[in-house]
Amino acid sequence: MAKTLGVHIVADLYGCDPEILKSADRMAEIFEGAVREAKLNKLSSHFHQFYPYGATGVIVISESHLSFHTWPEHGYVAIDVYTCGAHELAFKAFDYIVDKLNPSRVEKDVHFRGVIDESEEVEFASAYSVEA
Amino acid sequence: MAKTLGVHIVADLYGCDPEILKSADRMAEIFEGAVREAKLNKLSSHFHQFYPYGATGVIVISESHLSFHTWPEHGYVAIDVYTCGAHELAFKAFDYIVDKLNPSRVEKDVHFRGVIDESEEVEFASAYSVEA
Repeated sequence: MAKTLGVHIVADLYGCDPEILKSADRMAEIFEGAVREAKLNKLSSHFHQFYPYGATGVIVISESHLSFHTWPEHGYVAIDVYTCGAHELAFKAFDYIVDKLNPSRVEKDVHFRGVIDESEEVEFASAYSVEA
Repeated sequence: MAKTLGVHIVADLYGCDPEILKSADRMAEIFEGAVREAKLNKLSSHFHQFYPYGATGVIVISESHLSFHTWPEHGYVAIDVYTCGAHELAFKAFDYIVDKLNPSRVEKDVHFRGVIDESEEVEFASAYSVEA
């Protein structure tokens, strides 16, 4: 029987407020809020402010990652929300972000990543020993 | 006329060597190598070792990001290579990574992200002032 290891939402948001998109701090606040809202487990956060404008950020979570890259001059931001474990957590975090950024248009693809045959898992598990 | 702001390779690699996938250090070496190979501009790197096994990493580049999340027990790793600017750089970095990880099977989707009408760009640019 197959199982899926993760869900990855790849989304392009258009028509967002450039005042938010231009600020790494404001974007960070939204993404940190999404991680809290979905009760994801943060490992580390990394935000970069570009000049004259634009921001990039990644939050690494034990369930995978969230990222954003903004183009304020286009009112555009590229967003990724990728979690393993319960699929609804990715959607919960994503919905929180979209609600805060209030885009006029969203183009979204959802990837179900890592489709594993459970018989294959047993084979790998027995062949693979963990060193202390 | 429309232009595309970035290219994002979303790839699932199966049948990789668990000995590489279990080590954040070995995965980091491969991804840092890919960034150098494609002459991407690194902003910061973040790697996490899980116990008993598994690794996660993100390299934030001024052109967007690269990431990996490994499941050594399945010989599986989820890889993202996302760059703005010249599209061939993403493929160059990705090919480097695949060459090092030598998977038996690759499932890959390529997203051309941020399709902008250049007339829209002018409109945004004129409406949007950068504060000093």
